[in-house]
Amino acid sequence: MRKGFTLWFTGLSGAGKSTLSNHLAAELRQRGLNVEILDGDEVRTNLSKGLGFSKEDRDTNIKRIGYVCKLLTRNGVIAISAAISPYKEIRDYNREQIGNFIEVYVQCSIEALTRRDVKGLYKKALAGEIKNFTGVSDPYEAPVSPEITVDSERQSEQESLRSILSYLEQHNWIPAASVTAHAGKCCST
Amino acid sequence: MRKGFTLWFTGLSGAGKSTLSNHLAAELRQRGLNVEILDGDEVRTNLSKGLGFSKEDRDTNIKRIGYVCKLLTRNGVIAISAAISPYKEIRDYNREQIGNFIEVYVQCSIEALTRRDVKGLYKKALAGEIKNFTGVSDPYEAPVSPEITVDSERQSEQESLRSILSYLEQHNWIPAASVTAHAGKCCST
Repeated sequence: MRKGFTLWFTGLSGAGKSTLSNHLAAELRQRGLNVEILDGDEVRTNLSKGLGFSKEDRDTNIKRIGYVCKLLTRNGVIAISAAISPYKEIRDYNREQIGNFIEVYVQCSIEALTRRDVKGLYKKALAGEIKNFTGVSDPYEAPVSPEITVDSERQSEQESLRSILSYLEQHNWIPAASVTAHAGKCCST
Repeated sequence: MRKGFTLWFTGLSGAGKSTLSNHLAAELRQRGLNVEILDGDEVRTNLSKGLGFSKEDRDTNIKRIGYVCKLLTRNGVIAISAAISPYKEIRDYNREQIGNFIEVYVQCSIEALTRRDVKGLYKKALAGEIKNFTGVSDPYEAPVSPEITVDSERQSEQESLRSILSYLEQHNWIPAASVTAHAGKCCST
Protein backbone atom coordinates (compact mmCIF):
# COMPACT_ATOMS: atom_id res chain seq x y z
CA MET A 1 0.00 0.00 0.00
CA ARG A 2 1.26 3.46 -0.88
CA LYS A 3 1.65 6.01 1.88
CA GLY A 4 -1.50 8.09 2.21
CA PHE A 5 -1.48 11.68 3.35
CA THR A 6 -3.72 14.71 3.59
CA LEU A 7 -2.99 17.97 1.82
CA TRP A 8 -4.90 20.53 3.80
CA PHE A 9 -5.42 23.75 1.87
CA THR A 10 -6.46 26.80 3.83
CA GLY A 11 -7.04 30.35 2.70
CA LEU A 12 -9.69 32.96 2.04
CA SER A 13 -12.54 32.48 -0.38
CA GLY A 14 -11.31 33.08 -3.92
CA ALA A 15 -7.63 32.66 -3.05
CA GLY A 16 -7.38 29.69 -5.39
CA LYS A 17 -7.71 26.61 -3.16
CA SER A 18 -10.15 24.74 -5.40
CA THR A 19 -8.40 25.57 -8.66
CA LEU A 20 -5.01 24.56 -7.27
CA SER A 21 -6.49 21.38 -5.77
CA ASN A 22 -8.06 20.37 -9.04
CA HIS A 23 -4.89 20.87 -11.05
CA LEU A 24 -2.78 19.18 -8.42
CA ALA A 25 -5.17 16.21 -8.26
CA ALA A 26 -5.04 15.89 -12.06
CA GLU A 27 -1.23 15.87 -11.99
CA LEU A 28 -1.07 13.33 -9.15
CA ARG A 29 -3.60 11.06 -10.85
CA GLN A 30 -1.58 11.22 -14.03
CA ARG A 31 1.31 9.88 -11.96
CA GLY A 32 -0.88 6.90 -11.04
CA LEU A 33 -1.71 8.02 -7.51
CA ASN A 34 -5.11 7.77 -5.81
CA VAL A 35 -6.44 11.21 -4.99
CA GLU A 36 -9.70 12.42 -3.52
CA ILE A 37 -10.69 16.08 -3.21
CA LEU A 38 -12.95 17.15 -0.37
CA ASP A 39 -14.17 20.46 -1.64
CA GLY A 40 -16.04 22.87 0.60
CA ASP A 41 -19.17 22.99 -1.54
CA GLU A 42 -19.39 19.27 -2.26
CA VAL A 43 -18.89 18.49 1.40
CA ARG A 44 -21.58 20.91 2.47
CA THR A 45 -24.00 19.02 0.21
CA ASN A 46 -22.97 15.50 1.16
CA LEU A 47 -21.80 15.69 4.75
CA SER A 48 -22.93 18.95 6.25
CA LYS A 49 -26.32 19.90 4.88
CA GLY A 50 -28.12 22.07 7.40
CA LEU A 51 -24.95 23.47 8.94
CA GLY A 52 -24.52 27.23 8.77
CA PHE A 53 -21.53 29.53 9.11
CA SER A 54 -21.38 30.13 12.86
CA LYS A 55 -18.08 29.20 14.49
CA GLU A 56 -19.63 26.02 15.88
CA ASP A 57 -21.07 24.93 12.54
CA ARG A 58 -17.87 25.74 10.67
CA ASP A 59 -15.90 23.73 13.22
CA THR A 60 -18.23 20.75 12.84
CA ASN A 61 -17.96 20.95 9.07
CA ILE A 62 -14.16 21.06 9.14
CA LYS A 63 -13.95 18.20 11.64
CA ARG A 64 -16.14 16.08 9.38
CA ILE A 65 -13.89 16.75 6.43
CA GLY A 66 -10.98 15.86 8.69
CA TYR A 67 -12.61 12.58 9.66
CA VAL A 68 -13.10 11.57 6.02
CA CYS A 69 -9.52 12.63 5.20
CA LYS A 70 -8.33 10.43 8.05
CA LEU A 71 -10.15 7.38 6.68
CA LEU A 72 -8.77 7.98 3.19
CA THR A 73 -5.26 8.74 4.39
CA ARG A 74 -4.91 5.59 6.47
CA ASN A 75 -5.98 3.59 3.43
CA GLY A 76 -3.21 4.91 1.24
CA VAL A 77 -5.14 7.67 -0.52
CA ILE A 78 -4.02 11.27 -1.02
CA ALA A 79 -6.86 13.30 0.47
CA ILE A 80 -7.07 16.97 -0.46
CA SER A 81 -9.20 19.35 1.54
CA ALA A 82 -10.01 22.65 -0.13
CA ALA A 83 -12.30 24.28 2.41
CA ILE A 84 -11.54 27.73 3.88
CA SER A 85 -11.03 26.23 7.38
CA PRO A 86 -10.55 29.59 9.10
CA TYR A 87 -9.79 28.40 12.64
CA LYS A 88 -6.32 27.27 13.63
CA GLU A 89 -7.53 25.15 16.53
CA ILE A 90 -9.62 22.90 14.29
CA ARG A 91 -6.94 22.59 11.64
CA ASP A 92 -4.55 21.54 14.41
CA TYR A 93 -7.13 19.07 15.72
CA ASN A 94 -7.35 17.50 12.25
CA ARG A 95 -3.56 17.47 11.98
CA GLU A 96 -3.38 15.46 15.17
CA GLN A 97 -6.19 13.10 14.15
CA ILE A 98 -4.82 12.45 10.68
CA GLY A 99 -1.09 12.25 11.32
CA ASN A 100 0.19 12.48 7.75
CA PHE A 101 -0.91 16.08 7.42
CA ILE A 102 0.52 18.75 5.16
CA GLU A 103 -0.89 22.24 5.53
CA VAL A 104 -0.87 24.41 2.42
CA TYR A 105 -1.56 28.07 3.03
CA VAL A 106 -2.89 29.80 -0.07
CA GLN A 107 -2.06 33.40 0.71
CA CYS A 108 -3.76 36.37 -0.91
CA SER A 109 -4.60 39.81 0.46
CA ILE A 110 -8.15 40.99 0.89
CA GLU A 111 -7.30 43.87 -1.47
CA ALA A 112 -6.32 41.52 -4.27
CA LEU A 113 -9.32 39.29 -3.63
CA THR A 114 -11.63 42.31 -3.73
CA ARG A 115 -10.08 43.37 -7.03
CA ARG A 116 -10.56 39.90 -8.55
CA ASP A 117 -13.91 39.13 -6.89
CA VAL A 118 -14.91 36.60 -9.54
CA LYS A 119 -18.21 35.78 -7.86
CA GLY A 120 -18.93 39.32 -6.63
CA LEU A 121 -18.95 38.04 -3.05
CA TYR A 122 -16.38 40.45 -1.58
CA LYS A 123 -18.30 43.45 -2.86
CA LYS A 124 -21.44 42.15 -1.19
CA ALA A 125 -19.61 41.22 2.00
CA LEU A 126 -17.94 44.63 2.24
CA ALA A 127 -21.33 46.25 1.72
CA GLY A 128 -22.62 44.21 4.67
CA GLU A 129 -24.89 42.08 2.52
CA ILE A 130 -23.28 38.77 3.50
CA LYS A 131 -22.87 37.97 7.16
CA ASN A 132 -20.11 35.73 8.51
CA PHE A 133 -17.96 36.24 5.43
CA THR A 134 -14.45 35.04 6.24
CA GLY A 135 -11.85 37.79 6.16
CA VAL A 136 -14.44 40.56 6.05
CA SER A 137 -17.06 40.00 8.75
CA ASP A 138 -15.73 36.72 10.16
CA PRO A 139 -12.23 35.83 11.40
CA TYR A 140 -9.53 34.08 9.41
CA GLU A 141 -6.62 32.73 11.39
CA ALA A 142 -3.67 32.29 9.06
CA PRO A 143 -1.44 29.28 9.71
CA VAL A 144 1.61 29.98 11.87
CA SER A 145 3.96 27.41 10.37
CA PRO A 146 2.34 25.67 7.42
CA GLU A 147 4.42 23.08 5.58
CA ILE A 148 3.84 24.96 2.32
CA THR A 149 2.86 28.54 1.56
CA VAL A 150 1.87 29.66 -1.91
CA ASP A 151 1.11 33.25 -2.75
CA SER A 152 -1.62 33.50 -5.34
CA GLU A 153 -1.15 37.26 -5.52
CA ARG A 154 2.45 37.09 -6.71
CA GLN A 155 2.90 33.55 -8.01
CA SER A 156 1.36 32.11 -11.14
CA GLU A 157 -0.73 29.01 -10.71
CA GLN A 158 2.01 26.98 -12.39
CA GLU A 159 4.58 28.27 -9.92
CA SER A 160 2.35 27.40 -6.98
CA LEU A 161 1.76 23.93 -8.37
CA ARG A 162 5.46 23.33 -8.92
CA SER A 163 6.22 24.49 -5.41
CA ILE A 164 3.70 22.03 -3.90
CA LEU A 165 4.86 19.13 -6.07
CA SER A 166 8.45 19.86 -5.29
CA TYR A 167 7.74 19.83 -1.53
CA LEU A 168 5.93 16.50 -1.86
CA GLU A 169 8.77 14.98 -3.85
CA GLN A 170 11.51 16.29 -1.60
CA HIS A 171 9.80 14.92 1.49
CA ASN A 172 9.16 11.58 -0.18
CA TRP A 173 5.41 11.85 -0.03
CA ILE A 174 5.29 11.10 -3.74
CA PRO A 175 7.89 9.58 -6.05
CA ALA A 176 9.93 12.11 -8.01
CA ALA A 177 8.48 12.24 -11.51
CA SER A 178 10.87 14.80 -12.97
CA VAL A 179 13.72 12.40 -13.80
CA THR A 180 11.57 10.11 -15.92
CA ALA A 181 9.72 13.03 -17.45
CA HIS A 182 13.04 14.70 -18.36
CA ALA A 183 14.66 11.57 -19.73
CA GLY A 184 12.54 11.52 -22.84
CA LYS A 185 12.80 15.23 -23.47
CA CYS A 186 16.18 16.71 -22.78
CA CYS A 187 18.94 14.39 -23.80
CA SER A 188 18.76 13.78 -27.51
CA THR A 189 22.53 13.76 -28.03
CA MET B 1 -5.07 -0.59 -7.52
CA ARG B 2 -7.25 -3.34 -6.08
CA LYS B 3 -10.95 -3.30 -6.79
CA GLY B 4 -12.80 -1.49 -4.01
CA PHE B 5 -16.32 -2.35 -2.99
CA THR B 6 -18.85 -1.66 -0.28
CA LEU B 7 -20.29 -4.36 1.92
CA TRP B 8 -23.54 -2.91 3.13
CA PHE B 9 -24.87 -4.69 6.21
CA THR B 10 -28.49 -4.11 7.11
CA GLY B 11 -30.58 -5.61 9.88
CA LEU B 12 -32.21 -4.88 13.21
CA SER B 13 -30.36 -3.63 16.24
CA GLY B 14 -28.61 -6.55 17.95
CA ALA B 15 -28.81 -8.83 14.90
CA GLY B 16 -25.02 -9.02 14.76
CA LYS B 17 -24.00 -6.48 12.11
CA SER B 18 -21.16 -4.91 14.11
CA THR B 19 -19.76 -8.19 15.42
CA LEU B 20 -19.81 -9.77 11.97
CA SER B 21 -18.28 -6.64 10.43
CA ASN B 22 -15.45 -6.59 12.93
CA HIS B 23 -14.57 -10.25 12.44
CA LEU B 24 -14.88 -9.95 8.69
CA ALA B 25 -12.67 -6.86 8.65
CA ALA B 26 -10.05 -8.68 10.74
CA GLU B 27 -10.05 -11.62 8.31
CA LEU B 28 -9.83 -9.37 5.25
CA ARG B 29 -7.00 -7.33 6.77
CA GLN B 30 -5.14 -10.53 7.54
CA ARG B 31 -5.37 -11.24 3.83
CA GLY B 32 -3.63 -7.93 3.17
CA LEU B 33 -6.69 -5.99 2.05
CA ASN B 34 -7.58 -2.42 3.01
CA VAL B 35 -10.77 -2.32 4.99
CA GLU B 36 -12.67 0.47 6.70
CA ILE B 37 -15.73 -0.04 8.90
CA LEU B 38 -18.35 2.69 9.07
CA ASP B 39 -20.16 1.73 12.22
CA GLY B 40 -23.47 3.33 13.18
CA ASP B 41 -22.24 4.71 16.50
CA GLU B 42 -18.88 5.98 15.29
CA VAL B 43 -20.54 7.67 12.35
CA ARG B 44 -23.11 9.37 14.52
CA THR B 45 -20.25 10.88 16.51
CA ASN B 46 -18.07 11.91 13.58
CA LEU B 47 -20.44 12.67 10.74
CA SER B 48 -23.94 13.01 12.09
CA LYS B 49 -23.86 14.60 15.51
CA GLY B 50 -27.14 16.38 16.14
CA LEU B 51 -29.17 14.11 13.88
CA GLY B 52 -32.01 12.23 15.54
CA PHE B 53 -33.99 9.15 14.57
CA SER B 54 -36.78 10.62 12.46
CA LYS B 55 -37.06 9.19 8.96
CA GLU B 56 -35.44 12.32 7.53
CA ASP B 57 -32.52 12.26 9.95
CA ARG B 58 -31.98 8.53 9.51
CA ASP B 59 -31.97 9.01 5.73
CA THR B 60 -29.43 11.82 5.99
CA ASN B 61 -27.22 9.70 8.22
CA ILE B 62 -27.34 6.71 5.88
CA LYS B 63 -26.65 8.88 2.83
CA ARG B 64 -23.58 10.33 4.56
CA ILE B 65 -22.27 6.87 5.30
CA GLY B 66 -22.96 6.04 1.66
CA TYR B 67 -21.00 9.07 0.49
CA VAL B 68 -17.94 8.08 2.54
CA CYS B 69 -18.25 4.47 1.34
CA LYS B 70 -18.30 5.78 -2.23
CA LEU B 71 -15.07 7.74 -1.73
CA LEU B 72 -13.36 4.73 -0.14
CA THR B 73 -14.68 2.26 -2.71
CA ARG B 74 -13.51 4.25 -5.71
CA ASN B 75 -10.05 4.38 -4.16
CA GLY B 76 -9.72 0.63 -3.90
CA VAL B 77 -10.78 0.22 -0.28
CA ILE B 78 -13.29 -2.32 1.07
CA ALA B 79 -15.82 -0.17 2.91
CA ILE B 80 -18.12 -1.89 5.39
CA SER B 81 -21.24 -0.17 6.64
CA ALA B 82 -22.79 -1.66 9.76
CA ALA B 83 -25.66 0.74 10.41
CA ILE B 84 -29.28 -0.50 10.70
CA SER B 85 -30.27 1.37 7.49
CA PRO B 86 -33.96 0.54 7.77
CA TYR B 87 -35.23 2.11 4.53
CA LYS B 88 -34.94 0.32 1.22
CA GLU B 89 -35.08 3.51 -0.84
CA ILE B 90 -31.96 4.94 0.76
CA ARG B 91 -30.05 1.67 0.58
CA ASP B 92 -30.93 1.56 -3.11
CA TYR B 93 -29.81 5.17 -3.51
CA ASN B 94 -26.45 4.27 -2.01
CA ARG B 95 -26.22 1.19 -4.20
CA GLU B 96 -26.64 3.38 -7.25
CA GLN B 97 -24.16 6.01 -6.03
CA ILE B 98 -21.50 3.51 -5.04
CA GLY B 99 -21.70 0.99 -7.86
CA ASN B 100 -19.66 -1.85 -6.36
CA PHE B 101 -22.28 -2.54 -3.72
CA ILE B 102 -22.96 -5.82 -1.93
CA GLU B 103 -25.94 -5.87 0.40
CA VAL B 104 -25.70 -8.25 3.36
CA TYR B 105 -28.96 -8.85 5.16
CA VAL B 106 -28.39 -9.98 8.74
CA GLN B 107 -31.68 -11.66 9.49
CA CYS B 108 -33.03 -12.29 12.98
CA SER B 109 -36.57 -12.32 14.31
CA ILE B 110 -37.78 -9.78 16.83
CA GLU B 111 -38.57 -12.70 19.14
CA ALA B 112 -34.98 -13.92 19.11
CA LEU B 113 -33.66 -10.38 19.52
CA THR B 114 -35.97 -9.81 22.47
CA ARG B 115 -34.75 -13.04 24.06
CA ARG B 116 -31.08 -12.03 23.61
CA ASP B 117 -31.53 -8.32 24.31
CA VAL B 118 -27.91 -7.83 25.34
CA LYS B 119 -28.33 -4.11 25.96
CA GLY B 120 -31.88 -4.35 27.35
CA LEU B 121 -33.11 -2.09 24.57
CA TYR B 122 -35.88 -4.31 23.22
CA LYS B 123 -37.45 -4.62 26.64
CA LYS B 124 -37.48 -0.84 26.96
CA ALA B 125 -38.73 -0.34 23.40
CA LEU B 126 -41.55 -2.87 23.87
CA ALA B 127 -42.50 -1.09 27.09
CA GLY B 128 -42.74 2.12 25.08
CA GLU B 129 -39.76 3.70 26.80
CA ILE B 130 -37.76 4.20 23.57
CA LYS B 131 -39.41 5.97 20.70
CA ASN B 132 -38.47 5.33 17.06
CA PHE B 133 -36.95 1.95 17.85
CA THR B 134 -36.50 0.08 14.57
CA GLY B 135 -38.58 -3.07 14.34
CA VAL B 136 -40.69 -2.17 17.36
CA SER B 137 -41.95 1.39 17.06
CA ASP B 138 -40.25 2.32 13.78
CA PRO B 139 -40.30 0.53 10.42
CA TYR B 140 -37.66 -1.86 9.11
CA GLU B 141 -37.82 -2.65 5.41
CA ALA B 142 -36.01 -5.92 4.81
CA PRO B 143 -34.04 -6.16 1.56
CA VAL B 144 -35.92 -7.76 -1.32
CA SER B 145 -32.96 -9.34 -3.10
CA PRO B 146 -29.77 -8.81 -1.11
CA GLU B 147 -26.60 -10.33 -2.53
CA ILE B 148 -26.04 -12.19 0.75
CA THR B 149 -28.38 -13.19 3.56
CA VAL B 150 -27.11 -14.54 6.84
CA ASP B 151 -29.41 -15.77 9.57
CA SER B 152 -28.00 -14.99 12.98
CA GLU B 153 -30.84 -16.90 14.62
CA ARG B 154 -29.95 -20.24 13.03
CA GLN B 155 -26.37 -19.84 11.83
CA SER B 156 -23.30 -19.60 14.01
CA GLU B 157 -21.14 -16.52 13.55
CA GLN B 158 -18.49 -18.70 11.90
CA GLU B 159 -21.03 -20.01 9.40
CA SER B 160 -22.17 -16.50 8.57
CA LEU B 161 -18.60 -15.34 8.12
CA ARG B 162 -17.77 -18.28 5.85
CA SER B 163 -20.86 -17.62 3.79
CA ILE B 164 -19.88 -13.96 3.24
CA LEU B 165 -16.25 -14.78 2.45
CA SER B 166 -17.29 -17.52 0.08
CA TYR B 167 -19.60 -15.11 -1.80
CA LEU B 168 -16.80 -12.56 -2.08
CA GLU B 169 -14.36 -15.16 -3.36
CA GLN B 170 -16.77 -16.72 -5.82
CA HIS B 171 -17.63 -13.34 -7.30
CA ASN B 172 -13.98 -12.35 -7.48
CA TRP B 173 -14.32 -9.43 -5.11
CA ILE B 174 -11.40 -10.84 -3.13
CA PRO B 175 -8.76 -13.40 -4.08
CA ALA B 176 -9.52 -16.93 -2.93
CA ALA B 177 -7.45 -17.57 0.17
CA SER B 178 -8.47 -21.18 0.70
CA VAL B 179 -6.03 -22.75 -1.77
CA THR B 180 -2.95 -21.21 -0.19
CA ALA B 181 -4.28 -21.76 3.31
CA HIS B 182 -4.98 -25.42 2.50
CA ALA B 183 -1.68 -26.09 0.81
CA GLY B 184 0.28 -26.03 4.02
CA LYS B 185 -2.24 -27.97 6.01
CA CYS B 186 -3.78 -30.83 4.15
CA CYS B 187 -1.23 -32.56 2.01
CA SER B 188 1.42 -34.03 4.26
CA THR B 189 1.74 -37.25 2.26
